[in-house]
Amino acid sequence: MKAEELIALVKFDSRGLVPVVTQDVSDNAVLMVAWANAEAIENTFKTEHATYWSRSRNELWEKGLTSGHFQDVEEVLYDCDVDTLLYRVRQQGAACHTGERTCFYRSAFKRAGG
Amino acid sequence: MKAEELIALVKFDSRGLVPVVTQDVSDNAVLMVAWANAEAIENTFKTEHATYWSRSRNELWEKGLTSGHFQDVEEVLYDCDVDTLLYRVRQQGAACHTGERTCFYRSAFKRAGG
Repeated sequence: MKAEELIALVKFDSRGLVPVVTQDVSDNAVLMVAWANAEAIENTFKTEHATYWSRSRNELWEKGLTSGHFQDVEEVLYDCDVDTLLYRVRQQGAACHTGERTCFYRSAFKRAGG
Repeated sequence: MKAEELIALVKFDSRGLVPVVTQDVSDNAVLMVAWANAEAIENTFKTEHATYWSRSRNELWEKGLTSGHFQDVEEVLYDCDVDTLLYRVRQQGAACHTGERTCFYRSAFKRAGG
């Protein structure tokens, strides 16, 4: 599928954004969740680097361009409702800006005996 | 951590919602992405069944109550910005309403030779 075909399918929200889950292909760890717009999807397909739309900086965010922590995209999937994307990546360095491997490094609940 | 403590930490959006990624503990597959409000988080902690807020039905959605496809929650994590949750679950039956195991069953891009 071409980027344009995916963009035509995706149900973007009122801001023109779609949530993206980023998963490490090495062990399926969930690394982060961010947002993409049409431009971010295009750039992801073109560069094969995971690209998002930064809501705080209001700009295209090809992860790794400043940090070197690129995410080489192996696969892009979309969900049943076509309102969420899944980037499967090979992560270079840490995904999280804190230096942690994944943004999900803190637990709020753990089942007893689990 | 108690549900109330997590709720106090979470940065809910303007609708009072936070995105939730749901992952299968058996192999780390990403099963679905949905939304939670404070009530959904409370119910998840209380019942140990993954609970969401259904935006289409505008009601609490304890997954499995009608389908039998409960998600037994093993762990709840939160991300660095505390604006996304990760439910790690044991999935009973299929996660997707289509009958597929995961909602992410369609691929839009695959790296050549990947």
